[in-house]
Amino acid sequence: MAFGYEASSNHRLLLVRRPAGVPVQDDFTVDEVELPQAEEGTFVVRNLFLSVDPAQRGWATTGTHYTAPVRLGTVMRALAVGQVIASRHSAFLEGTHLYGWFGWQEYALARPDDVLTLIEALDIPLSAYAGVLGINGLTAALALKRIGRPVAGDTIIVTTAAGAVGSVATQLARAAGCTVVGITGSDEKAARCIGRFGCHRAINYREGKIELLLDANLPGGADILFDSVGGQLLDAMIRRLRRGGRIIQCGTASVPGWSPPPTGLRNEREILLKSLLWGGFVVFDHVSEFAVETRRLASLLREGKLIYEEDIRQGLIKAPRALTDIYAGRNSGKVLIAL
Amino acid sequence: MAFGYEASSNHRLLLVRRPAGVPVQDDFTVDEVELPQAEEGTFVVRNLFLSVDPAQRGWATTGTHYTAPVRLGTVMRALAVGQVIASRHSAFLEGTHLYGWFGWQEYALARPDDVLTLIEALDIPLSAYAGVLGINGLTAALALKRIGRPVAGDTIIVTTAAGAVGSVATQLARAAGCTVVGITGSDEKAARCIGRFGCHRAINYREGKIELLLDANLPGGADILFDSVGGQLLDAMIRRLRRGGRIIQCGTASVPGWSPPPTGLRNEREILLKSLLWGGFVVFDHVSEFAVETRRLASLLREGKLIYEEDIRQGLIKAPRALTDIYAGRNSGKVLIAL
Repeated sequence: MAFGYEASSNHRLLLVRRPAGVPVQDDFTVDEVELPQAEEGTFVVRNLFLSVDPAQRGWATTGTHYTAPVRLGTVMRALAVGQVIASRHSAFLEGTHLYGWFGWQEYALARPDDVLTLIEALDIPLSAYAGVLGINGLTAALALKRIGRPVAGDTIIVTTAAGAVGSVATQLARAAGCTVVGITGSDEKAARCIGRFGCHRAINYREGKIELLLDANLPGGADILFDSVGGQLLDAMIRRLRRGGRIIQCGTASVPGWSPPPTGLRNEREILLKSLLWGGFVVFDHVSEFAVETRRLASLLREGKLIYEEDIRQGLIKAPRALTDIYAGRNSGKVLIAL
Repeated sequence: MAFGYEASSNHRLLLVRRPAGVPVQDDFTVDEVELPQAEEGTFVVRNLFLSVDPAQRGWATTGTHYTAPVRLGTVMRALAVGQVIASRHSAFLEGTHLYGWFGWQEYALARPDDVLTLIEALDIPLSAYAGVLGINGLTAALALKRIGRPVAGDTIIVTTAAGAVGSVATQLARAAGCTVVGITGSDEKAARCIGRFGCHRAINYREGKIELLLDANLPGGADILFDSVGGQLLDAMIRRLRRGGRIIQCGTASVPGWSPPPTGLRNEREILLKSLLWGGFVVFDHVSEFAVETRRLASLLREGKLIYEEDIRQGLIKAPRALTDIYAGRNSGKVLIAL
């Protein structure tokens, strides 16, 4: 088998403007440059699937972040699954499949530090390594393990329950013996939460007043909140946690912007009087656990105990719109760009 | 030595109105009833020191609480140190000193469940068992152990640092190798935080804009926040925590009332992006650890490694005003009512 370039140039999506709230098409532009060449200690990755993640909003904006923001005029930071097509590094041979920081572009010049997963098991579709076996599945698994600590009999609320993270959290919590109440944004998604992912109940938050919907579906409250949305929905859910409850903060997708700083209900009294534990979870704090956890999730996939959905779109140029769509709920599972 | 009643009646402070915000004198009334008589399985405690605690505001109001609110027309719930003067329970003999739920009154008819500490070591002043060896010292010690997890080199912010909980948290954190920055409400208290309790720096929050005061005293941010005040001060402090920071929520003393629900800055993004862990701490969740922890604190007291201040006032009638004073910062250390 021969590896090599299939194109004569590299198309890249550059961040050219800081998003005001949710990123939009005009925050990015496409350019075309020469193909990268491997220098000593590096290798060239041909991207096969680009990952589209809500976290990219944070990476594109300035402020308090766990990493430096993407510099304007450079390739948009993104995870991707690709294949090494040229290498001057002995540990990353041509033909190897990798998941890592390869950016929204066709070809990436990569270093070992850019790699998150060396893909060995090719019996699983490659795209899965960018989602259910990538940061989305790992976020669900590791956040539950570290902060949520589900115990049989617990009730858990999972937000964006039909999404790439929420659908995995739902299945893992159910397997741990929890009652799972999913929150999602349409009746169709609510039906999938129950029918496909195993939620015991599912709420379409657009259907009515969230407090009433929660009370109807959580008469006794909940022990764990797996929250990726923040905002008023979070405030309402916190008030329905039982004593000793745990809150996993994985995202703040429902809050349109952070400048000027938004306000909401004060939550410190809830935290105090119910002895809640509220933890922020950034999956990149736990890279040392990725290999073991990826293998565990891969086993569940092979055994048919973990299912996932993908929303695969074709072509680099579709990436910005796909990101906007995630924030509007116009996606159906993990969003990927196939190249 | 003979034990017995020293009075012919029992004066009690009854809660007669739900406090609107901070409790005031008129929320209580004094009555006089017959002395309690021990029935089988009970004992009569003559109160020596009544405890005055910010938590009493919560016990006196309705809402989301970890215990049922005090019923109107009944003795105000309070901890106290007292001595058994009549007993029909073989484990609580006459003469025994106890710390427990004996209420704002002169004499209490008590049951074993009402007792938190059986006071054995009388080389330590009895009043200490209601403060530094009572819920205040235990809150500091157990909240640090369970949520704060101080490590040598950490920087910790301690609110109400000259108070009954804060002064113990300061000393324990310093002994663990932390840099301690105290927050308090007057220059005089700030000086005591440094001079007596060992804060490396102390801020009088009334001196200026809290954000500027924090920035001047915490140029590199902090790792732990020991917060008993909540509100805008909490919002400002959260924004100065480093990645991986821990927040102990022990009280919300700065927030005047919770009905209607107060609003403030949204904090979920700080929690997420800095992987913070924010835990509510109610000391009564940890009663099984009291005996061991009380002994550890008593050892530190004997070795001169833990100091404490008391603000002892005379007479039952002074209790409500003493509680109001705590919220206004008009106290100097642990507030007790000597009878």
